[in-house]
Amino acid sequence: MSALEELMTFQGETEALAQISGRLGWDQETMMPRGSARQRGAEMAAMEAVLHARRSDPRVAVWLEAAEPGDEAGAAQLREIRRSYDRATKVPADLAKTLAQLTSESQGIWAQARADEDVAAFLPTLKEVVRLKREEGAALADGGDVYDAMLQDYEPGTTAKEITKIFDAMRVRLVALRSAILEKPMPAGLTGDFDERLQMKLARNLARDFGYDMNRGRLDKAVHPFSSGSGSDVRITTRTDPTDPFNCIYSTIHETGHACYELNIDPAYQLTPLGRGVSMGVHESQSRIYENQLGRSQAFTGWLFGRMTRTFGEIGVADADGFYAAVNRVRNGYIRTEADEVQYNLHIMLRYDLERALMAGDLEVDDLEAAWNDRFAADFGYAVDKPSNGVLQDVHWSVGLFGYFPTYSLGNVYAGCLYQALRAAVPTLDSQLALGELEPATDWLRANLQTHGGLYAPRDVIARASGAEPSERPLLDYLEAKFTALYDL
Amino acid sequence: MSALEELMTFQGETEALAQISGRLGWDQETMMPRGSARQRGAEMAAMEAVLHARRSDPRVAVWLEAAEPGDEAGAAQLREIRRSYDRATKVPADLAKTLAQLTSESQGIWAQARADEDVAAFLPTLKEVVRLKREEGAALADGGDVYDAMLQDYEPGTTAKEITKIFDAMRVRLVALRSAILEKPMPAGLTGDFDERLQMKLARNLARDFGYDMNRGRLDKAVHPFSSGSGSDVRITTRTDPTDPFNCIYSTIHETGHACYELNIDPAYQLTPLGRGVSMGVHESQSRIYENQLGRSQAFTGWLFGRMTRTFGEIGVADADGFYAAVNRVRNGYIRTEADEVQYNLHIMLRYDLERALMAGDLEVDDLEAAWNDRFAADFGYAVDKPSNGVLQDVHWSVGLFGYFPTYSLGNVYAGCLYQALRAAVPTLDSQLALGELEPATDWLRANLQTHGGLYAPRDVIARASGAEPSERPLLDYLEAKFTALYDL
Repeated sequence: MSALEELMTFQGETEALAQISGRLGWDQETMMPRGSARQRGAEMAAMEAVLHARRSDPRVAVWLEAAEPGDEAGAAQLREIRRSYDRATKVPADLAKTLAQLTSESQGIWAQARADEDVAAFLPTLKEVVRLKREEGAALADGGDVYDAMLQDYEPGTTAKEITKIFDAMRVRLVALRSAILEKPMPAGLTGDFDERLQMKLARNLARDFGYDMNRGRLDKAVHPFSSGSGSDVRITTRTDPTDPFNCIYSTIHETGHACYELNIDPAYQLTPLGRGVSMGVHESQSRIYENQLGRSQAFTGWLFGRMTRTFGEIGVADADGFYAAVNRVRNGYIRTEADEVQYNLHIMLRYDLERALMAGDLEVDDLEAAWNDRFAADFGYAVDKPSNGVLQDVHWSVGLFGYFPTYSLGNVYAGCLYQALRAAVPTLDSQLALGELEPATDWLRANLQTHGGLYAPRDVIARASGAEPSERPLLDYLEAKFTALYDL
Repeated sequence: MSALEELMTFQGETEALAQISGRLGWDQETMMPRGSARQRGAEMAAMEAVLHARRSDPRVAVWLEAAEPGDEAGAAQLREIRRSYDRATKVPADLAKTLAQLTSESQGIWAQARADEDVAAFLPTLKEVVRLKREEGAALADGGDVYDAMLQDYEPGTTAKEITKIFDAMRVRLVALRSAILEKPMPAGLTGDFDERLQMKLARNLARDFGYDMNRGRLDKAVHPFSSGSGSDVRITTRTDPTDPFNCIYSTIHETGHACYELNIDPAYQLTPLGRGVSMGVHESQSRIYENQLGRSQAFTGWLFGRMTRTFGEIGVADADGFYAAVNRVRNGYIRTEADEVQYNLHIMLRYDLERALMAGDLEVDDLEAAWNDRFAADFGYAVDKPSNGVLQDVHWSVGLFGYFPTYSLGNVYAGCLYQALRAAVPTLDSQLALGELEPATDWLRANLQTHGGLYAPRDVIARASGAEPSERPLLDYLEAKFTALYDL
């Protein structure tokens, strides 16, 4: 065997083990008996130790040195393996282990503090997480920018400078759009009886309509919806609320976007580093374009209104226009995960600026709540009423995910770029969405983006698919046009 | 850390990984999307390679050499780790890999041959399996008896000589009992409409009644019911047949017995080699005593009859006596897994004699079907009508499980011993079973047997619990008494 073949065989086993680890995570959120949390912790730790040992195995360096990539895909495989090897070897083993233990415990401490509305109870732990993450970031940065180094875990090739430029351009227009909308009367929401079994049945059908292959996936319930797995086993979850069917519907469509990205990657890349979505941002572009640009469009909601009334009877809105308005209501609120298309990115920018300051040492953990509340009041115009609606609302920082938040908004930006190109490529898009026909859109996304998996860098794959360098403008143009029409601005 | 501590830490991770591997097996039979079989194969192979590397890790030998056991439990841990290390290192890696690949493929070939009633299509594969298993057995036997070496994988400490002595004593009395019963009129079976959701609800309640802790387990459906996992995550499966509720009920109670054994092991042994049932035979003793001696008793079925009629309405038998007779019907049949208490062990003895002859080279694969059919006719008095009712009915040989079959009957023998002791220890057993109260029985089994996990050797733990060396006599006495009364012999 050549060095490349040896490396790819070894890596294939690592990828297979990583799939198992991911499936354990799925099991934990869907199937695991509650009384087995502690044993599961030991199982996950053992699995992580195996994966870390493989990712930092000295033979990988030798193979990487000797391997001839052959073609473009081979070069991309080597690039991804090298990135993983560097990541695994740069951070001292002791630090990695301490961080893993701490973030495993701190999630519980955060959850309790949030339940108790007690920021002070969480701060000592968060301080320790921040301290260790700074240390880890310094190890990864090799003298470069710490936060940029962290971004590579989620959005390889991106820098804070690039993101800041995009976010600065977005913030002004989004704040203005938000203010204009909130001066208008709020559309009515749904009312009615939304049987949870019927919601799940509808969710299954919607997932299929958006191209999800149930023969290589499954839909279950979870407290926090997610998508999990790569290759031929990509599972999604959703949740139901008997008074709010949108929760289930749009969580399902969102996760279907993530899952279809994974399922539609070229099968030749299965169980290789290219056989996964290339970044969190590109992943989010798929979930968001499925959920928002397609799922919340006037054309598609017109069709969905019919299915809703056939499924649930009276739903409290009289016609498709009323339904479209209900789907796209813009309301004051504190919680990121419940935010609409207009306000969502403002939530992200707040977190992005705060976490950069934390990592740079420009903001201390003791001052974080005040900084959060000031910024929130500035962007949203009203005060945070309690910590669970403010600084304690997200799990991310408790588990050390610094550098993750901006990828949500990058995903929205990428979705804007792709949607512009999709509309140009498929002039009949709206008339087909109005019939509940998603194939023209999902086929285009599969062929132009999803199939490539990890072959191209994140920005590159968006640029190839959309025909232009990524920019925030298409997203902002789309949002302004949509909500100007909807709210008669 | 001492050598023992280092070894136990390493072993603990191996046990955790083995739990993950087991849970993948559960997932495959219950949750896995059908289209992911091939990827799952790669995942399982990667996991098995990790486990094999750990079990044969040279450091284990060094630690075993240096470790001071300390106490009885420590000595037992070392005994089990040594056994696992010897097992993993005795078989050449190439042979192990070839066998794993072959038995993975041969299961599919067997299933197809069974569906097609085509023995010839399976024989070339079975020949290769037998050849490689003989080779593996020779490697394990180190010059000793090949079949005895194979038995150690399932029933450590047992020899074919011991088993043969027990089986020879059983066969005569069982053939006679069977003949006497079959001269009598067959009791009526159930008729009625057995809604599958109600069956599952009943199954969940029965599992709880028999002591299954749903906080550390769960019940799902599977084509072939099984129990899976150790420690605090032990899952069971059952199946439903709309015309035959016994299938669901007694599969559930059977698997509950297996699961309670695992769940009731001393928590101090969790994720250690002692934290699992000590052998297949002892495991089967628990599933069988739950299912048969308790679940099919006159006292308990009297109570169950009430619950059945409350759940399903009319079930085709008029009273508890009729229900008891229906539960315990002895009928001609070909299939081991559908056999009653009287005939089940005859099926096992047939397979035991044939597989010993195959492994010893006294019987060739080409002559296997004829040998099966001759022996079946001799013990059961009628001819096998088709291969799926004969030599192709069980999966075991196709996947290389030689030495496994006799543990089913050993389990019945052990259950007989335990039941005799249980009756002596709990004089009120029948009156409590008649109220659906299982605790006196399950508490006794937990305290006297299940809690010990792998601490004592299989024969020893049965001897300790039952107060006498294991013997087939209690089982035979129990069967003769039960069926003599039931069939008025």
